[in-house]
Amino acid sequence: MASDRQIWRLARRPVGSVTEGDLVLRTEPIPDLAEGQFLLQVIYLSLDPTNRIWMSDMEQYMPPVAIGEPMRGLVAGRVVRSRKAGVAEGEIFSGFGLWADHLVTGGQNFSRMDLPPGVPLSVAFGVFGLVGPTAYFGLLDIGQPKAGETLVVSAAAGGVGQVVGQLGKIKGCRVIGIAGGPEKCRFIVDELGFDAAIDYRREDVGARLDALAPEGVDINFEQVGGPVMEAVMGRMRLFGRVALCGLISGYNDTQAQTVPAPWTRLLMRRLTVRGFIVTDFADRWGEAVSALGGWMAEGRIRTRQDVRPGLERAVAHLDSLYTGGNFGKLLVEVSPDAPRT
Amino acid sequence: MASDRQIWRLARRPVGSVTEGDLVLRTEPIPDLAEGQFLLQVIYLSLDPTNRIWMSDMEQYMPPVAIGEPMRGLVAGRVVRSRKAGVAEGEIFSGFGLWADHLVTGGQNFSRMDLPPGVPLSVAFGVFGLVGPTAYFGLLDIGQPKAGETLVVSAAAGGVGQVVGQLGKIKGCRVIGIAGGPEKCRFIVDELGFDAAIDYRREDVGARLDALAPEGVDINFEQVGGPVMEAVMGRMRLFGRVALCGLISGYNDTQAQTVPAPWTRLLMRRLTVRGFIVTDFADRWGEAVSALGGWMAEGRIRTRQDVRPGLERAVAHLDSLYTGGNFGKLLVEVSPDAPRT
Repeated sequence: MASDRQIWRLARRPVGSVTEGDLVLRTEPIPDLAEGQFLLQVIYLSLDPTNRIWMSDMEQYMPPVAIGEPMRGLVAGRVVRSRKAGVAEGEIFSGFGLWADHLVTGGQNFSRMDLPPGVPLSVAFGVFGLVGPTAYFGLLDIGQPKAGETLVVSAAAGGVGQVVGQLGKIKGCRVIGIAGGPEKCRFIVDELGFDAAIDYRREDVGARLDALAPEGVDINFEQVGGPVMEAVMGRMRLFGRVALCGLISGYNDTQAQTVPAPWTRLLMRRLTVRGFIVTDFADRWGEAVSALGGWMAEGRIRTRQDVRPGLERAVAHLDSLYTGGNFGKLLVEVSPDAPRT
Repeated sequence: MASDRQIWRLARRPVGSVTEGDLVLRTEPIPDLAEGQFLLQVIYLSLDPTNRIWMSDMEQYMPPVAIGEPMRGLVAGRVVRSRKAGVAEGEIFSGFGLWADHLVTGGQNFSRMDLPPGVPLSVAFGVFGLVGPTAYFGLLDIGQPKAGETLVVSAAAGGVGQVVGQLGKIKGCRVIGIAGGPEKCRFIVDELGFDAAIDYRREDVGARLDALAPEGVDINFEQVGGPVMEAVMGRMRLFGRVALCGLISGYNDTQAQTVPAPWTRLLMRRLTVRGFIVTDFADRWGEAVSALGGWMAEGRIRTRQDVRPGLERAVAHLDSLYTGGNFGKLLVEVSPDAPRT
């Protein structure tokens, strides 16, 4: 068994895009296990838009990662040594961990993953980790979709967006996805069953919305911010809902979001805008996993993962999130995902 | 009985403040009553911030008043002639009417007012007309106040603001009112029991909020927009709610509201912003009137009305709403409010 580990530490706060040098990869001894702890060999590291927020000192929803500390990330891994009662070698856990190939934990912020038969760990972790519950609570609780309504989701081919759109279809909505590039646009319509796609790189989002949804938008599942958000916000219908999930277009910005505040429209059209972070719904996690698992088993929710090798390339992989270079939920395969029996 | 009436017609869309000439006062014959109609002698005309919106062609929640048409307004009046079964002379009705001393209606958008003993018509109409239900639904449904939370209400000495603050106290909130001038500030604290007041004309609203509510604001009952709104929005707490009731500071503007969009804050603090118009809650009007009537009977909600004589001065009276010249719910006494038996 390894005695050293690879671990990324935050060296300084990035300005603009994250570059190597902002984080540094170290080889360090694996800490000894205290009583009540276990050692996890990380199989998958989830890379998420919010990682960039944690590196910054912008206003955020949990303390940022301190300079010099290991970078925080959602991981799934296998127990390779345990001094904690009830935790056995070989079990799979996921939770808030580190950008590292091994980590020691007492189990706080981790939970055991019981994989349904035939479901790969990458899918279960990718969907049930954060992405699926984010889509589930954001769309169903905040978006309040009703049959016949028009739902727009930005970053539609991303991990969350894929699930949001399919949930919208399950609820009887007309679903328009906004994504970058023809391949993603084809995928969400042909493979996932969205009603329409808008390629924000090649098309005038506002004009296309006017054509596709001349009566306007009932629900905006907002992940992007910037001009795409502005185009959708200007077309919200009476009593529309905006699930404010992310503003990724601005996470690398050094200035605040510049989308004008449509206060008059919010008032006159009686819109509801609600910001949320999926962990706000932690006490209802089981509900989301159970419902999503059911729909996945029925084939009504399918997802595409973007699994990439190499913890040592994590910074480059992360950057693809902000340039639209990923295609589906982005995971780093840190250790081989050996077949399980 | 009069055969002519005085009636205000919209002559042109105002630019900036409303001036005489935008509306013109005409003497016209009172229309004949058709079967099913009755003639109302208007006692009170309610002047409300939203009147300015109806005169404009800005985006709004019902069709604007057309050029040449009578100006729309909420009125209370006495039936002086009736050809409608079940409607008798002397009965009091209120509803959506006109800026006129007499009007003919079939009763659509009107309802009979049964005044509790000892309650003057000006109070019943002022509070139960629009102001009370606006405060009731906006604060209780959208604001979701919880004991111990901090509530900020702008235009706090106005018709809606007075009720919002007292409802907040009933619900156990710490209530900070923002008003213009020492007299209004004293009134809301000394007479209505608000915990604190901020005089936006003389004080730095942001600095005073920092001093009065160092932990931030849970509920913003927003009526004003502009810099006052910006100061409050920048100080919202985690899971805060914004009941977006009005944006009066901008109703005379020729440009859109310029308060920056705090999208990042909305997301990170998981705020909810919801625009509303009181008529959205029309099916629950009785609930509001009943609850407010009970609290008024107990002396837990008191209100100050600003009753002014003279339909012919309606334009000047209206303008005071936008300059802070009114003090409490603004009503024009169009005909004498004779004692009723």
